Amino acid sequence: MEKLNCYWVAGFTDGEGTFYVGINKNTQMTAGFQVLPEFRIVQHQRDIKLLHKLKDFFKCGVVRKNHDTRYELRIRKIEHLSQIIVPFFQKYPLQTQKKYDFIAFAKIIKMINQNDHLTKQGIGKILQTAKKMNRKNKAITERNFQVG
Amino acid sequence: MEKLNCYWVAGFTDGEGTFYVGINKNTQMTAGFQVLPEFRIVQHQRDIKLLHKLKDFFKCGVVRKNHDTRYELRIRKIEHLSQIIVPFFQKYPLQTQKKYDFIAFAKIIKMINQNDHLTKQGIGKILQTAKKMNRKNKAITERNFQVG
Repeated sequence: MEKLNCYWVAGFTDGEGTFYVGINKNTQMTAGFQVLPEFRIVQHQRDIKLLHKLKDFFKCGVVRKNHDTRYELRIRKIEHLSQIIVPFFQKYPLQTQKKYDFIAFAKIIKMINQNDHLTKQGIGKILQTAKKMNRKNKAITERNFQVG
Repeated sequence: MEKLNCYWVAGFTDGEGTFYVGINKNTQMTAGFQVLPEFRIVQHQRDIKLLHKLKDFFKCGVVRKNHDTRYELRIRKIEHLSQIIVPFFQKYPLQTQKKYDFIAFAKIIKMINQNDHLTKQGIGKILQTAKKMNRKNKAITERNFQVG
């Protein structure tokens, strides 16, 4: 099986990829919130083999059902996002406006690595950055995050 | 401005491109039908610059409004499809199931170059090939094409 080309993966992600950061209330966390960044690619089930090929390409993530006839490759582990996904898209840059989602996403991953997500102040900074991401994401984070 | 990478263009097309063949009744045509193949990439207006960049990349096509806040790069000229688009995706292959749309599309372009679209029999062959393309396309061609 031929390996996917790195630029092809960047182009396909420009079309089909999502950089998402969920910020949810969680009283079990010291700062009161849980930060859940994820990278995913959703496809119709007819292309499930390609999702597995992408999983092999990145050497991380899980292929699972998304919704109805759709499947996704989902990468959530912070070390995989930090050591594989972020460096990859820094080397093979996105060309659509999605690149600004990625830039904010990469910043948040960096903040998490600095443990910013464990303090109330750090959560505030993460929220400000997440707001720069796509509108759907913004709506979700604003709904879940009550400042003060 | 940096030129787009060929593999990036293939990956982006796997996500966002459409190979479409319209077969419409047209009493002015000898065979009674008009065959209209087109390649298009539709994007939200926020990425209109990228559509122009893709137009520069392929050195053909037109960027125009698609619908509401969406714009498209559309390539319809048979010589551009035949000499630029088809050879490009033969060299930089698609990875999704969309590749089967492309294979059928390329066959139809070849048939048009052989003037098959000018005879009733040729139109029948083109329709059979178009049926192998995406469902939306199939529905449209079946609606418009009355055999016999």
